This record gives sequence, C-alpha cells and structure tokens, in this order.
Amino acid sequence: MGSESRRRLFVEANLAEGARVALTEDQSHRLLHVLRAGRGTALALFNGRDGEWRAELAETGKKRALLRVGERLRAQEPEAGPWLVFAPIKRGPLDLLTEKATELGASVLLPVRTRHTDAQRVNTARLGAIAVEAAEQCGRLTVPEVRAPQPLDALIAAWPAPRRLIVLDETGGGVPIVSAIAALGDAPAAILVGPEGGFAQSELDALRSLTFAVGVDLGPRILRAETAAIAALACWQALRGPDRGIAFQPSP
Amino acid sequence: MGSESRRRLFVEANLAEGARVALTEDQSHRLLHVLRAGRGTALALFNGRDGEWRAELAETGKKRALLRVGERLRAQEPEAGPWLVFAPIKRGPLDLLTEKATELGASVLLPVRTRHTDAQRVNTARLGAIAVEAAEQCGRLTVPEVRAPQPLDALIAAWPAPRRLIVLDETGGGVPIVSAIAALGDAPAAILVGPEGGFAQSELDALRSLTFAVGVDLGPRILRAETAAIAALACWQALRGPDRGIAFQPSP
Repeated sequence: MGSESRRRLFVEANLAEGARVALTEDQSHRLLHVLRAGRGTALALFNGRDGEWRAELAETGKKRALLRVGERLRAQEPEAGPWLVFAPIKRGPLDLLTEKATELGASVLLPVRTRHTDAQRVNTARLGAIAVEAAEQCGRLTVPEVRAPQPLDALIAAWPAPRRLIVLDETGGGVPIVSAIAALGDAPAAILVGPEGGFAQSELDALRSLTFAVGVDLGPRILRAETAAIAALACWQALRGPDRGIAFQPSP
Repeated sequence: MGSESRRRLFVEANLAEGARVALTEDQSHRLLHVLRAGRGTALALFNGRDGEWRAELAETGKKRALLRVGERLRAQEPEAGPWLVFAPIKRGPLDLLTEKATELGASVLLPVRTRHTDAQRVNTARLGAIAVEAAEQCGRLTVPEVRAPQPLDALIAAWPAPRRLIVLDETGGGVPIVSAIAALGDAPAAILVGPEGGFAQSELDALRSLTFAVGVDLGPRILRAETAAIAALACWQALRGPDRGIAFQPSP
C-alpha cells in the first residue's frame, strides 16, 4: 500500500549481485512508457528461487530495459501455502479468484474438469499473468504455478500421497473448516472447489471414499464458487500461514 | 447452486399467508421479460423481518407482477454477523466487496472517510442493489444495511458501546485475527478496513487508544483492501457464524 515502496517485478533470470537482467518487451514497455521510469530508477526483483533483490534501471532502449542487480533484500522462503484445485468458472470470477488466491498464499492453481463444469476452456496463460501481477503487488517471493487442466478422476487417481484434500462440500455434509484445518496438523494441503452447478453425486461419493480427503461445510449460506474458495484460503492463511505460530484446537 | 431451487426475491412488503405483494417495476421487468416467468411460477420471498415464504406469480401486466404469498418456508433468524466499516475504494473492488460481504454475513456496510481515502463519493444506492442481489442468491433472510458515509473520527466518537472493533492494521502491529476473534467471545463486532493508502499515523494512534478496538495482522503479505476485508469476514464466519457451535481457543 505505501507509495514509497519500490515496484516489484517477477523475472525468470537468475538473480545475484552484479547480474544484468533484461526485461521482457511487455515489462519494458510498462516500465518505460506507462510508468515513465528513467535510468537509475530503483526496483525490486524476485524469481521464485533466489529471494528478493534490489535492482536499478541501467540501460533503456525503445523497447527494452536492462536492470543491474544490487544487494539481496530478502532470502527465499519455502512456499507452504495450499494448492487450489478448482472447476473453472466464468472469466470474471476466475480472474478474481486467481488474484485473491495469489494474495492469500496458494502455491499451485490447478483447474479440474468435473461432470458439471460449464467453462470447458481455461486460459492458463492469462491466469499466469494475473498471478504474476498479484504476486508482484502483494510481496510474495513466488508466483503460484498454474497447471494444465485435468479431469477430476485422473487427479484423484494420481494424488500425491501425503497431501490432504479439503473438499468444499456445498451439500452440507462436511465438518467446519476450522476443525478440518486444525486436524491437518503440518500436512501439506489442497483445497478443492467444485463448479457452480456443484459436484455430481458420483463425484461426491468418490471424494467421500478417499482417505486423504475431508469434506468441509462453510456454513448455511450458498456461496458462489469463488467466494467459497477465497474464504477457505483466508481461513487456511489465518490458521496455518506464515507468522501464524499459534496452533488452535477445539475447546472441550 | 442447485438449478431446481426457487428464485428468491427481496421485497419491502409484510409477508403473511394469503398476502398479495406487488413487485417493483424493475423486479417485474426482470421476472416477466428477462426470466420469462408466467402465471403460477413459484418463488420465495423474504423481507428481512418475517422469514422466507413461498409465493406464486398471480397476476401479470406489462410492467407489473403481483404475487400471492403461500406458506412460510423458514422462520426469521437474528442476523448476528459483524458490521463492515470500510474506507471506499475504487468502484470494481467496492462492488465486489459488497457482494462478498453479503455472502459472508456482514449485517451492516458502513463507509467511512479517512485521511487517505481516495474515493470521495460512494453510491450507497448501487451498493444496496448489489447487496439485495447477493442476499437473494446466497439464501440470507436479511439484506445488509448500507449506511451513509461518515468521517472515521465521528464514527469513533459515537461508537455503540458493547460492540468491539477489529481493526485490520496493515502496518503489522496487530494480533493474529483468529486470536482476536476468539477473544471477542459473544460480543457483537465490527471489522474496519482502511483505504488503499493505509490509515494516517494519527488515525492509527487514535484507533490504538480505544478500549473497544483490537488491531489485527493478516500476515506478511500486502493484501488489497477488499481482500483483507473479505478474508477477515471469512475468518469471522468460520469461527463465529451460524451453525459454528464450536468455540476455539489457543492451545497451550
């Protein structure tokens, strides 16, 4: 929020003191022509691997900007946030969900096709660009990885063993989300949100039979899919996020 | 989400079996010409006071629809959700916040002017219309009351005594939100979110001196104002919302 904070940019290049980093054409255009940055402008760079580094605009051309990397500002930290597994929804709410999930610490964005999924195509490149911008803005040292869509049954069949799956069950059969998150302990987690039309009964039955999954109930109101996912991520963040060194347990 | 659920409409009229309720011109247009509903179409009505009632489209004119109220479907329940006190932000994020705050159970939406508030005008009528639509969609029996904007200092000076104020403090000085909500017990609450530019130092000092206020920290990332407010409401809902009959306390 503070206006004096340095603009942050995500880059693919390795970052080390003295390195020279060329921005992409889009980034260069934005920096030079939209933000009207000149030589010597201070920035901060991150690449998801090497932490955050001070950098300075060293050379400018018509369509290119070259940065010189200075000292390291922050060390890289592991990104322990949950995966968000979602049935694609309409473009506006999906863009919103991508931005908010990035701010709320999701580590992976994974679209799944379900029986009732309406939106058949997902523009993962667009979601990736939204995630980069949100990561730059919110101070993350990583950008959530946007994976290619896959069918729900294939995802479940190849589920990575220790990761737990929190299923947002709009039929009301689940446990309160706070209980579900508390019961996870330190296990890695994924949050699954279904399509606007809900999961098919066969999908709910399959999900309920999984030993690594737990159904949660977000309360009596009918939440839009993106609201449910954002709410679940916010709860995860509040209970398990960085600097939340407090374990909560149900009172007796 | 389910497609077989009756369309819900918010009305101002009193609701009782046998009552006849005229829809507004806007509602009539939407029902008759957008949704192409005909005589006999079943609906559900609520007015924030009398619970939810079955109703049937009884008479139609070119610009009017008259409903006949049938039996009561749900009794009215008290709306115990928190107030949301917010410095107005840009139109898109503010519309979004209004929709999500309604889904997440806010009982009052109260715009405040702060030192760094950018958006000086708030269209409370538009926010009210968004709140009505979200309440109809999510199954609430009430619509959050959208109040007229007021200055932060005046609001604080006339604060209603037993209500606690959860201040989303982006400067990092607060306690984790789960702790703050747990410490409230059953007290009524309000959540305060500042403008994109943050609170002025004098405002933070004033807020920190209040006995009814507690500053909370939503973690190390820089959340957009609407994200912070939605996250706080989601946490409140998960810990204190309807059907959350579970009290949480920090583990020792």
